[in-house]
Amino acid sequence: MNILLANPNTTASMTRRMEAAASAVVGPDTRITAVTAPYGPPSVEGYYDEALCVPPLLEAVVPLARGADGVVVGCFDDTGVDALRCRLDVPVIGICQAAMQSAAVLSNTFSVITTLQRAVPALERLALHYGFERRCRRIRAAEVPVLDLEDPDSGALAVIEDEIERALEDDGAEAIVLGCAGMVEFSRILSAKFGVPVIEGVTAAVKTVEGLAALGLKTSSRGGYAPPRRKTYSGDFARFSPE
Amino acid sequence: MNILLANPNTTASMTRRMEAAASAVVGPDTRITAVTAPYGPPSVEGYYDEALCVPPLLEAVVPLARGADGVVVGCFDDTGVDALRCRLDVPVIGICQAAMQSAAVLSNTFSVITTLQRAVPALERLALHYGFERRCRRIRAAEVPVLDLEDPDSGALAVIEDEIERALEDDGAEAIVLGCAGMVEFSRILSAKFGVPVIEGVTAAVKTVEGLAALGLKTSSRGGYAPPRRKTYSGDFARFSPE
Amino acid sequence: MNILLANPNTTASMTRRMEAAASAVVGPDTRITAVTAPYGPPSVEGYYDEALCVPPLLEAVVPLARGADGVVVGCFDDTGVDALRCRLDVPVIGICQAAMQSAAVLSNTFSVITTLQRAVPALERLALHYGFERRCRRIRAAEVPVLDLEDPDSGALAVIEDEIERALEDDGAEAIVLGCAGMVEFSRILSAKFGVPVIEGVTAAVKTVEGLAALGLKTSSRGGYAPPRRKTYSGDFARFSPE
Amino acid sequence: MNILLANPNTTASMTRRMEAAASAVVGPDTRITAVTAPYGPPSVEGYYDEALCVPPLLEAVVPLARGADGVVVGCFDDTGVDALRCRLDVPVIGICQAAMQSAAVLSNTFSVITTLQRAVPALERLALHYGFERRCRRIRAAEVPVLDLEDPDSGALAVIEDEIERALEDDGAEAIVLGCAGMVEFSRILSAKFGVPVIEGVTAAVKTVEGLAALGLKTSSRGGYAPPRRKTYSGDFARFSPE
Amino acid sequence: MNILLANPNTTASMTRRMEAAASAVVGPDTRITAVTAPYGPPSVEGYYDEALCVPPLLEAVVPLARGADGVVVGCFDDTGVDALRCRLDVPVIGICQAAMQSAAVLSNTFSVITTLQRAVPALERLALHYGFERRCRRIRAAEVPVLDLEDPDSGALAVIEDEIERALEDDGAEAIVLGCAGMVEFSRILSAKFGVPVIEGVTAAVKTVEGLAALGLKTSSRGGYAPPRRKTYSGDFARFSPE
Amino acid sequence: MNILLANPNTTASMTRRMEAAASAVVGPDTRITAVTAPYGPPSVEGYYDEALCVPPLLEAVVPLARGADGVVVGCFDDTGVDALRCRLDVPVIGICQAAMQSAAVLSNTFSVITTLQRAVPALERLALHYGFERRCRRIRAAEVPVLDLEDPDSGALAVIEDEIERALEDDGAEAIVLGCAGMVEFSRILSAKFGVPVIEGVTAAVKTVEGLAALGLKTSSRGGYAPPRRKTYSGDFARFSPE
Repeated sequence: MNILLANPNTTASMTRRMEAAASAVVGPDTRITAVTAPYGPPSVEGYYDEALCVPPLLEAVVPLARGADGVVVGCFDDTGVDALRCRLDVPVIGICQAAMQSAAVLSNTFSVITTLQRAVPALERLALHYGFERRCRRIRAAEVPVLDLEDPDSGALAVIEDEIERALEDDGAEAIVLGCAGMVEFSRILSAKFGVPVIEGVTAAVKTVEGLAALGLKTSSRGGYAPPRRKTYSGDFARFSPE
Repeated sequence: MNILLANPNTTASMTRRMEAAASAVVGPDTRITAVTAPYGPPSVEGYYDEALCVPPLLEAVVPLARGADGVVVGCFDDTGVDALRCRLDVPVIGICQAAMQSAAVLSNTFSVITTLQRAVPALERLALHYGFERRCRRIRAAEVPVLDLEDPDSGALAVIEDEIERALEDDGAEAIVLGCAGMVEFSRILSAKFGVPVIEGVTAAVKTVEGLAALGLKTSSRGGYAPPRRKTYSGDFARFSPE
Repeated sequence: MNILLANPNTTASMTRRMEAAASAVVGPDTRITAVTAPYGPPSVEGYYDEALCVPPLLEAVVPLARGADGVVVGCFDDTGVDALRCRLDVPVIGICQAAMQSAAVLSNTFSVITTLQRAVPALERLALHYGFERRCRRIRAAEVPVLDLEDPDSGALAVIEDEIERALEDDGAEAIVLGCAGMVEFSRILSAKFGVPVIEGVTAAVKTVEGLAALGLKTSSRGGYAPPRRKTYSGDFARFSPE
Repeated sequence: MNILLANPNTTASMTRRMEAAASAVVGPDTRITAVTAPYGPPSVEGYYDEALCVPPLLEAVVPLARGADGVVVGCFDDTGVDALRCRLDVPVIGICQAAMQSAAVLSNTFSVITTLQRAVPALERLALHYGFERRCRRIRAAEVPVLDLEDPDSGALAVIEDEIERALEDDGAEAIVLGCAGMVEFSRILSAKFGVPVIEGVTAAVKTVEGLAALGLKTSSRGGYAPPRRKTYSGDFARFSPE
Repeated sequence: MNILLANPNTTASMTRRMEAAASAVVGPDTRITAVTAPYGPPSVEGYYDEALCVPPLLEAVVPLARGADGVVVGCFDDTGVDALRCRLDVPVIGICQAAMQSAAVLSNTFSVITTLQRAVPALERLALHYGFERRCRRIRAAEVPVLDLEDPDSGALAVIEDEIERALEDDGAEAIVLGCAGMVEFSRILSAKFGVPVIEGVTAAVKTVEGLAALGLKTSSRGGYAPPRRKTYSGDFARFSPE
Repeated sequence: MNILLANPNTTASMTRRMEAAASAVVGPDTRITAVTAPYGPPSVEGYYDEALCVPPLLEAVVPLARGADGVVVGCFDDTGVDALRCRLDVPVIGICQAAMQSAAVLSNTFSVITTLQRAVPALERLALHYGFERRCRRIRAAEVPVLDLEDPDSGALAVIEDEIERALEDDGAEAIVLGCAGMVEFSRILSAKFGVPVIEGVTAAVKTVEGLAALGLKTSSRGGYAPPRRKTYSGDFARFSPE
């Protein structure tokens, strides 16, 4: 089985970290192909970056996805997931939905620790969209920029630990969801340290897609995820025209 | 006062119709500047088109908006509105939010008549996001492609009338919201025909933004609409880098 | 255009302040006619005052409204708005709905600063009714009686500032809504001081109604806002009989 | 124990029917005192009537309530209940809340059969306010004016039976709530006929208040139901001034 | 009238306390029959105990209920209530639903004080199920094991008082609901001490059932509470086979 | 990896069908151990059966689970899942949650086809509990008893097909969830026939648990799923005492 893991930002080192984590958890017959956005924002921090990372993501993913059995979007904003579901028939999931659904199996309530306050409203909207507006008690910003997570000396981990402590004390959270692909390796350390499930979305998403693909399930092509109507896009975006 | 009215699809005739409608309703001191997406999809019909119309929209709007007092996005998916709110400090609104908020003043309940079934889930998500999941009784697809609305011989109006009839009979709707910028001229005819408010978003949005601008109100720069962090986008999208 | 601005309490000085604020923001062709409740409670602070201010409001507004293009009810409880919508065909709005709808365009989340704790449940009910139970993070009582807002020496502004500070720190509010007509002049000062939109309902409502009237939109007469059935009221209230 | 049963409309025959039904179900030591609104609308059919029946209701009830152990408002719009809860310390309930709470004990889901479509939005708002927006599957209007329920030859019962049939077939309702005080005697006949609980609010409310009073429970005076602040109402309504 | 009051745990002293409290509030013609679970957990503290107390509860209640006019389940998890509603036609209520419904008559908002944190998610689920997810502001655990409530020297009351204080200060609660049958005697003391309604479920439930039975109302046998289909259970549970 | 698949009813043939389906989809290193409830109801059809199948389920599963890496409860009521999550530290999931979560990845909206109307309220409650009250458009009862699904000549499949057709036409469902473990083999046939994802919970649950276990994730032991407090159960249920 082939799973395409797409990083919608252009930071290749983050892609490599996601790929390593993903490869460590899939079955023996599953191959992870990781792809980095070929151009655009180096990190996704809020609505504006989010909007601009989708076309490069689609450009990278759609051709590669032909041979894939499932696609994971490695950004906690689940950027471009709906557009991809229209273009592909294999299962597509973002790491936010995957992590929240996993948390909903392992706990009654959870809090999310994400990077920056400016990202919080978009994540609250996702929590509502996915049905977790009651279980997700709070989305906490550690105020760590995404790319600081690439730097082991940034002190990011300590700040995240502080937020987890507050989530457990103040929010009534029974589990923690890490709200950024850049936190991909922190899950086990933090689970061990705090004695609660600390769920990371990249690995959760890869296993979810691997499972759905094994069941032969496809994305619905009825309704909102119907393939886009054939039409000719103009100018710079002619290459995106749905054939 | 200057209001920028942006059509996120590339169909200039639709922009002109919107501009005409908007110009007819603004105050004597308000000037409408209409802009058409410079490249990309000719119509927005579902998640995929939606994702691809945002960069051209941003590219057209952001520079022009410097002299504007408010911005209206003329697409019922409210495409790119959140990204624009991050980049601009003047009020920005999409025609879905404007129409639904107007309906909420004039009625207890309403139904939306939109173009295609594939657009419905995105609109249901907007209704929820804007807080109208209870008042908005149903989003009905007339199964009319967007560009058929440009063609007076397409029979689109008759199909829309049928759906309005069903909305009034079956949904308990007290008002109707027209769910596509391409329906911009139908509002008065249909209001008269059915004896209920039939609300069209382009004009509703222009008046909303005109009102907010007259009050000197700006988009919040705290939280989710904070200006994007300065960073260098790469490749084709370098030009979008938030300065 | 004529807009009727009705103060449902009997305090004429408050009406004059509202009228001044409203007149300053309308278009050159719009005239504000302000009316004060002819009898009843001098201020509306909770459910009991609310119930008793409606008949005088209706008595003052209904005859005057014949020449009006829209009506604004200048009380944050939106008192009597539904009854007026039944009697009139022009747009009618209360300042709570107007302010919250404005906040929903300018921010992802907001908190309300109102006068007294006893008013909070009624306002929470309105937030829910208007669809803002998620965006409205908290309704905070400054514990300032309404009429203290008439007195510049009451210290009311300082207390309101304290609550705004707490709303921004603790509630994750991106904007502030002033929850009493008596705070009508505070909007610009507080916006400037806190660097976030501080939205005041009287002016927001006047612009909303002005916009809807310019579009030729009327209140729906189908369903909940149908004109009252003709019947003869008895005794003291015979004069209210719907003709 | 004394329970005050107040009819907020002026139709004394309806009060007598309610009183008879109520008296038949209370305990041997409970006395029902029924009171009819001394002036105002003869029936409550929508928001306008609703607003105008509150002052006469308050005028009749507040003085009488001093000797009462609980108060029931016999109108399915629960008109004036919040204002009364502010003025009185004994339990006060409207027949809508009582009937819906009873239905929630006896069934998983219910539909309401009320009189006129114009009343439906106000009842939907109550269902939401009381927490029954999921269990209450639909509020159906039989299109029977309230006072037709006073007339055995009006054919009202047959029309109500039709709506109950549809509610059981189409809404998935497990129980029926009768949505008007004028239907007070229909409960047992219809329960027997349809083999499901058909719940009537006057009797449900009387038993609820009798129960709460027996427990020595009072309305909270903290927050929204705090006694109104002492102030002088002017003119015609001076007599309503909260002392 | 006969009301069966069932304690789903095996602690007979708790049953006796409930019975005493219940007997003190019913009408002169109502007899309380109290029954203790014949085997199983001595206290219900979380999902596991909850699951295991239902069969003994059913075994004790179903035969006895034949002569009863209504049944109360004296555990704040409302354990077994749905199963009993299927087997019996008389009204059945748990003390959580009864207490929350009473609180919704006497206040706009309430908080629950329960025993242990592990019980909170189940109670939050009940609050949602009964429609009180907005009014119920918080479910607070006093961290007092259930059986400590049997021991006057446990200091339980003081800890509960602390939580009530915090609920009134921090949650905006206007009333308090005691979230465990073991707190049955605390209601009046605490109401007096804090000057707000402190509602206890056993007595609230008994009065609710007494009221519904007086109205001749039965549990719906249509839909979810239909009598179980006749089938033969095997082995140890053959005795539970629905006949 | 070992996954324990537990059938909470006593029908061994159903267990075998589930086991076969599960074994066909797991990875090469995963072993399914299937267990049938040792006593109790032969099928779970509504609240009463549900309550009575939990103790045998716990009795069968808890000891066996010591060697397992995850547990699946093969009943669409997700019976006993919460109790098991308290007793075990490995991931536990029911087939309702698993199927609904899968549907939420593959579609915007879905309907459930279950067996009997009496089961519907419990499933609606689960849909709400899991956060799918908006996406799950309707839970449809085919009125096929559970054990008819064991009999290929019962005509059950045809009836289910009829309901799927109606769900696609009338509910706006983009995917179908099969709402009973007894429908375990129907998924692929029906997916092919209707051209939409038809999701079956047993296989979905097994893959979910396999995925979570591969990630080393455990059920939270903080809060609602904390291990039960040590206590001595009495009588027949002494053997269930949490050690």
